[in-house]
Amino acid sequence: MGEQVPSPVQVRLDELHARVQLNCEGEVATYIPALGKADPALFGLALATHDGHVYESGDTGVGFTIQSVSKPFVYALALYDRGLNGVLERVGVEPTGEGFDALRLEPETGRPLNPMVNAGAIVTASLVNGDDWGQRFQRILDGLSAFAGRELRVDHEVLASEERTGDHNRALGYLLRNAGVLEGDVDKALAVYFRQCSVVVTARDLAVMGATLAGGGVNPVTGQRVVGADTTEHVLAVMATCGTYDFAGEWLLRAGLPAKSGVAGGLVAVLPSQLGIGVFSPPLDRRGTSVRAIAACQELSARFGLHLMRPVNRTAPVLHRFLRGDSLSSQRSRRHAEREILQANSGQIAICELQGDLGFAAADVAVRAIADGLDGVRWLVLDLHRVGRAEPVAVDLLDTLVGELRERGVGTAVAAEDGESPVIAEASFRSLDEALEWCEDALIAQECPPSERAGLDPAAHVPLGEQDLLRDLPAEMIDVLTPLVVERRLAPGEPLFEPGDRPDETLYFVVSGGLIAQQVSGDEVIRMASMGPGTTVTRLTLVDDRNPYRIVAEEPTVLQVLSQTVQKRLEDEHPQVVEALHWAMARGLAARLRQADAQNHALLGSAVPVER
Amino acid sequence: MGEQVPSPVQVRLDELHARVQLNCEGEVATYIPALGKADPALFGLALATHDGHVYESGDTGVGFTIQSVSKPFVYALALYDRGLNGVLERVGVEPTGEGFDALRLEPETGRPLNPMVNAGAIVTASLVNGDDWGQRFQRILDGLSAFAGRELRVDHEVLASEERTGDHNRALGYLLRNAGVLEGDVDKALAVYFRQCSVVVTARDLAVMGATLAGGGVNPVTGQRVVGADTTEHVLAVMATCGTYDFAGEWLLRAGLPAKSGVAGGLVAVLPSQLGIGVFSPPLDRRGTSVRAIAACQELSARFGLHLMRPVNRTAPVLHRFLRGDSLSSQRSRRHAEREILQANSGQIAICELQGDLGFAAADVAVRAIADGLDGVRWLVLDLHRVGRAEPVAVDLLDTLVGELRERGVGTAVAAEDGESPVIAEASFRSLDEALEWCEDALIAQECPPSERAGLDPAAHVPLGEQDLLRDLPAEMIDVLTPLVVERRLAPGEPLFEPGDRPDETLYFVVSGGLIAQQVSGDEVIRMASMGPGTTVTRLTLVDDRNPYRIVAEEPTVLQVLSQTVQKRLEDEHPQVVEALHWAMARGLAARLRQADAQNHALLGSAVPVER
Repeated sequence: MGEQVPSPVQVRLDELHARVQLNCEGEVATYIPALGKADPALFGLALATHDGHVYESGDTGVGFTIQSVSKPFVYALALYDRGLNGVLERVGVEPTGEGFDALRLEPETGRPLNPMVNAGAIVTASLVNGDDWGQRFQRILDGLSAFAGRELRVDHEVLASEERTGDHNRALGYLLRNAGVLEGDVDKALAVYFRQCSVVVTARDLAVMGATLAGGGVNPVTGQRVVGADTTEHVLAVMATCGTYDFAGEWLLRAGLPAKSGVAGGLVAVLPSQLGIGVFSPPLDRRGTSVRAIAACQELSARFGLHLMRPVNRTAPVLHRFLRGDSLSSQRSRRHAEREILQANSGQIAICELQGDLGFAAADVAVRAIADGLDGVRWLVLDLHRVGRAEPVAVDLLDTLVGELRERGVGTAVAAEDGESPVIAEASFRSLDEALEWCEDALIAQECPPSERAGLDPAAHVPLGEQDLLRDLPAEMIDVLTPLVVERRLAPGEPLFEPGDRPDETLYFVVSGGLIAQQVSGDEVIRMASMGPGTTVTRLTLVDDRNPYRIVAEEPTVLQVLSQTVQKRLEDEHPQVVEALHWAMARGLAARLRQADAQNHALLGSAVPVER
Repeated sequence: MGEQVPSPVQVRLDELHARVQLNCEGEVATYIPALGKADPALFGLALATHDGHVYESGDTGVGFTIQSVSKPFVYALALYDRGLNGVLERVGVEPTGEGFDALRLEPETGRPLNPMVNAGAIVTASLVNGDDWGQRFQRILDGLSAFAGRELRVDHEVLASEERTGDHNRALGYLLRNAGVLEGDVDKALAVYFRQCSVVVTARDLAVMGATLAGGGVNPVTGQRVVGADTTEHVLAVMATCGTYDFAGEWLLRAGLPAKSGVAGGLVAVLPSQLGIGVFSPPLDRRGTSVRAIAACQELSARFGLHLMRPVNRTAPVLHRFLRGDSLSSQRSRRHAEREILQANSGQIAICELQGDLGFAAADVAVRAIADGLDGVRWLVLDLHRVGRAEPVAVDLLDTLVGELRERGVGTAVAAEDGESPVIAEASFRSLDEALEWCEDALIAQECPPSERAGLDPAAHVPLGEQDLLRDLPAEMIDVLTPLVVERRLAPGEPLFEPGDRPDETLYFVVSGGLIAQQVSGDEVIRMASMGPGTTVTRLTLVDDRNPYRIVAEEPTVLQVLSQTVQKRLEDEHPQVVEALHWAMARGLAARLRQADAQNHALLGSAVPVER
């Protein structure tokens, strides 16, 4: 398929926009005269996702003054600059049950009840960093711009209109200074507030600003951190309880989205962690909220399932896979005796791959499942490669679990990005395969009878006659073969076989040391498998145009090599030896294939049952 | 490991309980005299998870009267019985900014402002189903019991005390009847309300009740549905804005958990989708909320990261795997020519496995990723086995996408539980493997040159000389072999090979029809692979004590069979034929092993990059 597929979300957003456009109720605000000129047909609807994708429908590029929608963002800046308690001293966080222009101040402290009513917003604007009012406004303008991800400006016509008609707000200013919560020149404080309200934004801007609150303060489009995650938690909580004044309760009940509206017809709504919605449509209801914004958000919430209190993600699987050693083994070529030990004791190794973000609930499910699933286990591989973010509580719970396991004789190997485990464990590795190999080595060392220990030692020297591939061949065949193989020595790092090579040799017996197989693609080298003394590398499994393997010595390594020329001679002189070799190779390959197929099946089918 | 591992969450909960126990501030309530007898040292803390696990610390089994903590649960019952609008007619949902005993009614409607203050709760109790007051109270007692998951009872001593000292509530009752929102006998309505407040619960009960709200109305311990998910959304929204009266704003800001407190020292807090917390400790602060409950919830929220507005789960991966046909192929044994077609065109097949619950955000990410990742694709496998719950919006978005793909010539095969796809697609199957086989068959049919089409037809007849295994053998070897193989016919469903069989035959050439390999464990039969005309089954890959394969004919099938006895004779008379056979088998096995290894690697390493 070459052609671009239209986005299903865009399709639905456009349909919804067309429906809501038909709603012509409400009146354009006139109490600031410059706003009265707005076209009541304008309607922009934008949705910005946590990963910075922005869907837009209608007039999402039309500028309008932000008005009260600025309040939560300036509150965020003040919280970020002053800290929660520094702001709470001057502005409360309780809903008023009254309108945006509520005069009521808290009797004991003189604080305005919350930062979403004008009185609270005027004090909040005075609390952002800045040595003077000019610097404070610049901080506000820069902050709003960072939330939006573009440079915003002030509409001076609306500003002049606001200033001419701002006497109620001036009265609030003097009441606030009288109560001791606003300091300095009231006119200058009001000038900052009026300019803040006159900043021009679009519905798209509001969506991105909302998504920045949703994402813990990082603008998902620009990647810039604007405020901290604690700050956005607090701002969203206040938007939830106070964002739409005396309509806050019913708004949260119906739309289920913390939100803030403005008198120019703008509205921002936020689903924490997920998305921001920006709406612009000038006609307002009697409480001063855009009629189409209310309709669009409630319908979006219902159709897209966005209610904050909705039960969702209960089944998001935190266990990607939870397997035992019988369904997954490392890519180390094992000797027959080692394979037998691993098979007989496969239940002693457990492999647990976690995934997703680990917050409390996910970590709780994970530690419970692990603790309940370790019957008979002595070694645990904990693979964290698929974990996005592990919150402190998750690291703490995993640390505690690993510590408890250690006391019970269970060793844990962690596989994590760059081998850097956030959890304290016995060992940590870059890959699941290496972690699993470590567990297998430990298991073999523990279970191996003393008599065989020497032969399974990775430092062992395994002469031709004791090689695994030849173990069923009669002694006279070994005697035929012995003078025909050639010794070859490799230094650490020396390649035996480069991608694309088609060498003359057909069989390599590892006598001592060890080889690793690497897959090379561009600069990337991936460790695919490893082979120790007593195992065999055959050209048969390596030569493939699609698999550019490199075989390289991991340490000083001695091989016995059978060349194709010698094999040809053998075919004429001792066909039964070649026949026996091929049969042994086929048998070995079949065994490995069975294991690989079983592993494939385990990997494909090992979905952890979804909780219902 | 045999010994039980202590739960890390339990360890942390006990530590927190011990710390908070030391807080001895607050006073036991005395306005209902019977409550004044409570032991101020009592402190129970319980946490119930979405999957019904309950952690308990301290006095979680001590009974106390539920008091105002009953309000959200009875509100849930009323909403469930009357519908949202039926209840909103009588009780508002706006925060009052006042205490539990607020007298204020809404001027225009006479409604109490919300159901969390006493006035609203008295009206709410009158709205649950029941022909008379006795039935209504029984409905409330049964409902609270269902929320708790056990049969609750009334404390008659506290009830008598409530009734003796309930004049403020009686006054509210008459004001409410005067305003026209409470109907019938005020004394009887109050009697229901007093009895509701006198129901005895424990901290554990409150945790389970909260978890029931968190989980959309299904009690996670008993599995019983108590109310609907729409109802719990509405109840939790009202708890968030009004649950702790004039402390609601600061509570939501600091703890970030919808909650409700009671004067006997109980408190329930809820993290939607995730958990319920129940606390009991009698000493109250000046606003009537348990001091230790506030401390415990705020500390739990901070330490466990439970704030409702916290940015979490942004990275939960919705794409489990997104592969192309070059890294995953079906378990159908393919003829050489088929394999060549599949290899040359592997980019035309895409396999997308989704996982987790699909709400809006997850489905949005999924449809975007799929649409962006289909360059050159003609067939898409959509595997939904790992999807827990697909919300309507997710099904709608996937349907739209599949429809758009269809118009662009991309066919979609869905793999889902029981083959029942919630998404409308070209085909649906029980397993990913069958869906993938369907795509491969379609690709082969499309790309196969007309000259070869007959040979690749699943209904083809492939004589010995054209069998894939023998294609490099010289004609004279085929001539040696032909009279030695024996024809065998199988009816549909007839087994060739039962688990554990060790038959005399070593090679089976499929001439026509088809075989499937099944893994049998207990009653469960899993389709592992399939083999059509021209492919070979060798005993070598089947005989393994650990893999109890059954090979069975899928349709009328003709085989050519080489027995061990004949092979022994061949070894003596024509060793070069046996040698060539073994070599061909080894080569075939090596190719399959390479493919299986590559597939394993793709499956192990195909983590979709986590979004940052």
